[in-house]
Amino acid sequence: MENAPIRNVVANRERAYRVSICTGLSNGNVTELANCIGSRKTLLVSSPTVSRLYASEISRRLLESGIDVKMIILQCREQSKTLSEVEKLCKECFHAGMDRKSVLVGCGGGICTDLVTMAASLTRRGLNYIRIPTTLIGLIDAGIGIKGAVNLPHKKSALGCFHPPEQVLLDPAFLRTLPKKLISEGLAESIKVAIAMDDGLFEFIERYSRELLDSCSGANYEKMTELVWRSALRLLDDLEANLYENKTYRRLLDFGHTFSPIIESESKFRISHGMAVSIDMAASTAIAFELGLISSGDRNRVLNLLVDSGLPIYSPLLKSERCYSALVEMEAHRGGQLNLVLPTGIGRATFISERDRLTPQTLRPAIDYLRRETRPPGRFWPRGRDLNSGFAFGQQLACPPQSSWQADAP
Amino acid sequence: MENAPIRNVVANRERAYRVSICTGLSNGNVTELANCIGSRKTLLVSSPTVSRLYASEISRRLLESGIDVKMIILQCREQSKTLSEVEKLCKECFHAGMDRKSVLVGCGGGICTDLVTMAASLTRRGLNYIRIPTTLIGLIDAGIGIKGAVNLPHKKSALGCFHPPEQVLLDPAFLRTLPKKLISEGLAESIKVAIAMDDGLFEFIERYSRELLDSCSGANYEKMTELVWRSALRLLDDLEANLYENKTYRRLLDFGHTFSPIIESESKFRISHGMAVSIDMAASTAIAFELGLISSGDRNRVLNLLVDSGLPIYSPLLKSERCYSALVEMEAHRGGQLNLVLPTGIGRATFISERDRLTPQTLRPAIDYLRRETRPPGRFWPRGRDLNSGFAFGQQLACPPQSSWQADAP
Repeated sequence: MENAPIRNVVANRERAYRVSICTGLSNGNVTELANCIGSRKTLLVSSPTVSRLYASEISRRLLESGIDVKMIILQCREQSKTLSEVEKLCKECFHAGMDRKSVLVGCGGGICTDLVTMAASLTRRGLNYIRIPTTLIGLIDAGIGIKGAVNLPHKKSALGCFHPPEQVLLDPAFLRTLPKKLISEGLAESIKVAIAMDDGLFEFIERYSRELLDSCSGANYEKMTELVWRSALRLLDDLEANLYENKTYRRLLDFGHTFSPIIESESKFRISHGMAVSIDMAASTAIAFELGLISSGDRNRVLNLLVDSGLPIYSPLLKSERCYSALVEMEAHRGGQLNLVLPTGIGRATFISERDRLTPQTLRPAIDYLRRETRPPGRFWPRGRDLNSGFAFGQQLACPPQSSWQADAP
Repeated sequence: MENAPIRNVVANRERAYRVSICTGLSNGNVTELANCIGSRKTLLVSSPTVSRLYASEISRRLLESGIDVKMIILQCREQSKTLSEVEKLCKECFHAGMDRKSVLVGCGGGICTDLVTMAASLTRRGLNYIRIPTTLIGLIDAGIGIKGAVNLPHKKSALGCFHPPEQVLLDPAFLRTLPKKLISEGLAESIKVAIAMDDGLFEFIERYSRELLDSCSGANYEKMTELVWRSALRLLDDLEANLYENKTYRRLLDFGHTFSPIIESESKFRISHGMAVSIDMAASTAIAFELGLISSGDRNRVLNLLVDSGLPIYSPLLKSERCYSALVEMEAHRGGQLNLVLPTGIGRATFISERDRLTPQTLRPAIDYLRRETRPPGRFWPRGRDLNSGFAFGQQLACPPQSSWQADAP
């Protein structure tokens, strides 16, 4: 043979996408969306609630603009975040006669955009798609990256893909109809970015979170936009360098995502993702204080902001032995290095790489502190401050009280 | 706000993989495979037949080399090329405790490597995997690219992914146990590459195809390797420039893939892919002759080589009206341009972009020619030449005679 029998094949793929604020979309102004779609055949996917509030109107306006659009309504529950639901959506794409140039549009919360991302990724090996996130988590986190996922039984988001959207349209006004519990959950991700990377954003949320929660339906558009856009930009800055999660295991955005998977799964998902992230951030901050990495003043600012945002900072599921085993699991997941993100102040964080700095014995005082201070009359017992606001703390319960994060430890 | 509310995100992804000849692998020499795997946890996926002939032994040798390997045997039938089968395989990955650094190995035919490609793509948003194709189509075509696919009911390969393997190991000696029908089907893809791009390869197959089919189990390793490696290199040269099928719709490798999907589906898949591609290449070559693009001598060489390789060149399913509607469908699929690949000689081809050069009236004489010449005593009636060889033509029947491509038109 003429050549040595080895051939290296370069398989690079160039892609890009655009994230932008799209004022008025929630109000039926579809000009920008219609421009993105152009003359392509379109399938708009939404959930029953979002469809009733927004997507049906958006679809109607698109039709009026001459767009060839069909609409599909999916039950977007955690139980329907499955590969077979994705397959159904793919079949709908073929049924609607979509070809390789057609476009999917996902308008809804995280589960809706996850299902759309997965279906777009698989149908004809990849259709273009546009995301219109309608929850705060979607607007600042889940909706602006390139990932999609579905669950396996007992394994959340076990299967997934990286499939960049071509466009993400953000209208902060969607927040006006969002339940307060979902506002709080979104604030958790925004606070995560703020603690780890952006003290200015932290100060903004300190000033603004109560106002947003108290007057959501009439919230000021400029301020909502500032929250959404600052959070989104900061997240994208960090995300862009490692979009495919193949460059580094040291990611500031992993802050709050070490103990939270355990809290979520051990609560049988009655504690939602945002709530679990909040508990994790509180625990990580308390651990940072025990290790002498953060001052008591900054620790208290973090815990206060979480509580003020309607978020829990402790759960009886947070046990030092279980947290320690979470660290061991995370070490394997992050390529053999722990890379635990701990805050060193407001807007700054560090990585703890060596697991031996953290033992059940070092974790216990941090967890004890949170348990103690979230019981009456502890410093972070939220009832007092919530009695004076229109925002009843009990509304944020992610689960019935008997099994909730709010229940006292035995 | 400080910035204009638009953010462009670059989502490029850099990847590469290696295709190489790996002599001795089919015989249990796993040194190179073990080197590729290193210390990673491994799941080896195979089919019942390939497992009995090769993969169990490969797995045993890997274990002896200290590799942490488990083996899974999948029914690799066209009916099992489904998303739910992929999900089962993903669950097995989790069951086997695979993390993001683990590696899947697919050892088998196209369906096996398709299922492995899909499962690797979805599990934890992408595991590394190694392909060991064991059929001729796998060695020179389906196994060396980056695509995976599964079927939807009534829609072959409707769902799929682009997910480059990290390594493809080619051992041509796998061909020694391959049924002749599958050798012929692989030759169809090799002949496709040869007609469109490589006259030297065409001449090689002219000299070699009969020998390979007659003495497969004792076939000469050097010659098999030349067939495999020349075909694979030529395919990769063309493939690499457009791996994600997003650069151009003008692809020489589409030769033989315009009418074949119709022939496959209208025969209810009793006519296999390779057989259908052969019929398509014959039709395309006859059309090229009618359009004055290729000489009768070169046309006859093409048709002779197909027949000598145990491949059909005509089916009653090949009707001029249906072929014309296939062109219309293909035009939509290829981005609005027909880009029909027609040979202009041996090793050269051209693209027909305008559909109006081809009408049912221009297609009919080409199809009539093939029907006439494949009936006794036509020029390409294969019985005569096959009576003198050990290779009985009837063995290639992809379907019962009453509905076969060999049956005469009514």
